[in-house]
Amino acid sequence: MSKILPPGDQRRLDDLLSRFTDDAQHMIGYPGTHIIDFSPLAPFLEFFLNNIGDPYSASTFRLNTHEFEREVVTWFKQILRAGETDVRGYVTGGGTEGNMYGMYLARELLPGGIVYYSEDTHYSVAKILRMVNARSIMIKSRPDGEMDYDDLMRTLHLHRDVPPIIFANIGTTMRGAIDNLETIKTILKDLAIARSYIHADAALSGMILPFVDDPQPFGFDAGIDSIAISGHKMPGCPMPCGVVLARQAHIDRIARSVEYIGTSDMTVAGSRNGLTPLFLWYVIKTLGHEGFRDIIAECTAISDYAIAQFKAHGITAWRHKNSLTVVFPRQAENTLKKWQVATQGKDAHLITMPHVTRNHVDQFITDLVAATRKTETQKTAIPA
Amino acid sequence: MSKILPPGDQRRLDDLLSRFTDDAQHMIGYPGTHIIDFSPLAPFLEFFLNNIGDPYSASTFRLNTHEFEREVVTWFKQILRAGETDVRGYVTGGGTEGNMYGMYLARELLPGGIVYYSEDTHYSVAKILRMVNARSIMIKSRPDGEMDYDDLMRTLHLHRDVPPIIFANIGTTMRGAIDNLETIKTILKDLAIARSYIHADAALSGMILPFVDDPQPFGFDAGIDSIAISGHKMPGCPMPCGVVLARQAHIDRIARSVEYIGTSDMTVAGSRNGLTPLFLWYVIKTLGHEGFRDIIAECTAISDYAIAQFKAHGITAWRHKNSLTVVFPRQAENTLKKWQVATQGKDAHLITMPHVTRNHVDQFITDLVAATRKTETQKTAIPA
Repeated sequence: MSKILPPGDQRRLDDLLSRFTDDAQHMIGYPGTHIIDFSPLAPFLEFFLNNIGDPYSASTFRLNTHEFEREVVTWFKQILRAGETDVRGYVTGGGTEGNMYGMYLARELLPGGIVYYSEDTHYSVAKILRMVNARSIMIKSRPDGEMDYDDLMRTLHLHRDVPPIIFANIGTTMRGAIDNLETIKTILKDLAIARSYIHADAALSGMILPFVDDPQPFGFDAGIDSIAISGHKMPGCPMPCGVVLARQAHIDRIARSVEYIGTSDMTVAGSRNGLTPLFLWYVIKTLGHEGFRDIIAECTAISDYAIAQFKAHGITAWRHKNSLTVVFPRQAENTLKKWQVATQGKDAHLITMPHVTRNHVDQFITDLVAATRKTETQKTAIPA
Repeated sequence: MSKILPPGDQRRLDDLLSRFTDDAQHMIGYPGTHIIDFSPLAPFLEFFLNNIGDPYSASTFRLNTHEFEREVVTWFKQILRAGETDVRGYVTGGGTEGNMYGMYLARELLPGGIVYYSEDTHYSVAKILRMVNARSIMIKSRPDGEMDYDDLMRTLHLHRDVPPIIFANIGTTMRGAIDNLETIKTILKDLAIARSYIHADAALSGMILPFVDDPQPFGFDAGIDSIAISGHKMPGCPMPCGVVLARQAHIDRIARSVEYIGTSDMTVAGSRNGLTPLFLWYVIKTLGHEGFRDIIAECTAISDYAIAQFKAHGITAWRHKNSLTVVFPRQAENTLKKWQVATQGKDAHLITMPHVTRNHVDQFITDLVAATRKTETQKTAIPA
């Protein structure tokens, strides 16, 4: 029996690697990145690792990295300001699993509750809400992408008989807007709503706000019940993963003892990646809190550099406070495609993740301006 | 800013690698395995790959392996006997996501339908059903782990006004029992039930039955609507993943029902692992159909060897036809723990995955018999 990849297939792999090398140099529109070299962890590909079940329970199956996963969770608890609050969590397969976990906990705690989320919320949330079969109402967004609190207030007022579940964006996907947790809590209080749940989708900003001087409210100290953060965004893991944290009292409601794996499974996924907690642990231990502070400061400087360069070329670009998402008017589709820039309606954005340099920004704006001029020249050239 | 892992932490990684090397040599109880060397794919850890969205749709973000994923899906369509049936699918993060996808499709197609599943079904299914908020009834199992068809018939009869969703085990987790799809279809026909849905959880056996001479019914030719298979079980991927396939007509109906989300994203997870489809593609291309046939034949021979060795030591062990799960009476807990053997009630099992050799079987049975004798001697030694 042959155990060697046929030469034609090997060539395809080589081509793929070469294509990725080029594509990675033209990727300024998505919040993935590459901060450190993970190749020292390659030897772990030799094992069929599986972090099945709760990282806090012992398991019969030992090829897991639960110990490292717990340290990752502890680190996130600290940066997310859990303080003395009893909070637990685990490493997920990505943002969707984390948000689904939050919505599942919320629906179990407040059966029949209505989920409120802004129209700038990532499309996957509507999918999640349909999957978990939760009632929901989409709230208007303000022009800058933040939730329209007047609409939230009016809508909550109409449904005061039903417990609300707030799905708050701590950094929207397209415009990096942060829903104001203090304002939301004030509205709930003003309406004398006693039972509610707040989940924070902090996919990218959950790894920015802990490392800036004057963050908007974002953590457990701001009254959230659960939070999801992506591991493949700012921490730069080479494959999708994330961390979800929730108040222990909520988790206890859904955990159930399971004899087969000899553990109490509080997770959404059963079998879980054993390598991703190791990636997260590795990047945390290598960079540390100070390392991330330096990285966020540099990324912010490059955001401002991009805005200045756009302005120098007559293009209005902007970003929210503490956001690396630089929004500019959609134009020159082929250039946006070349640089893998996401668009929505009339907006486009670039995100100054750690791998994005001033040189990338210069090249992109040069391309964009040239393409836009060319289009305008062509338009002018059409005989009237 | 230091970008080097502190020496103490590096030591912990080294220790972990060394522990895994030992633990992997004492792992005969779970269906994970290691067939081929995946280290040639390690260079792909350099990129932030993300297979976000449907593998059949074009994406602005190019650091994906959609092309390879589609080939993996096509290969699984063929081994799962889709024939001319229009079937699609994608690479999941594991069995739970695949089963959740099947239950989500079923619930959308048959709103208010009741899910029927046997008591030998994996514990995660009850969790999934709770998450997707589906009505369900647990059906009794026969002593050998297969669904009790009399109980299924009687229970369906009581609820003929509600469309049934059958969750069939093509290989139960603990005893490798295969629910008989022909019998289930006959029951549905006898009760004149016109609308129904059958999902197959073929986590392990979905990669066994296509490679044996006389398989039980398991594929699309047997009338299933969707199926989930694990990629970290028989294909031996080093991290959890899987493949889910469903009839295109079902996926299309869901597509319409979620149109308001404004996306064609038919996956459960949003961001998805880009490396796991590459692992699956790599193992498929390296081993091919014939390679898997040889592997399954050898694993089956080792199953029979294990049963014979148990018998030679006075222990009754057994397996289902076309199963590699060897069931024996639970005993000597510490030995079971040493060998990472799963237990449930009075049963224990070993699974002769490709990495399990005759030598492993001999060592384990020697350990087990010695420990059991020791316990019996201690019991006898207690003064009457």
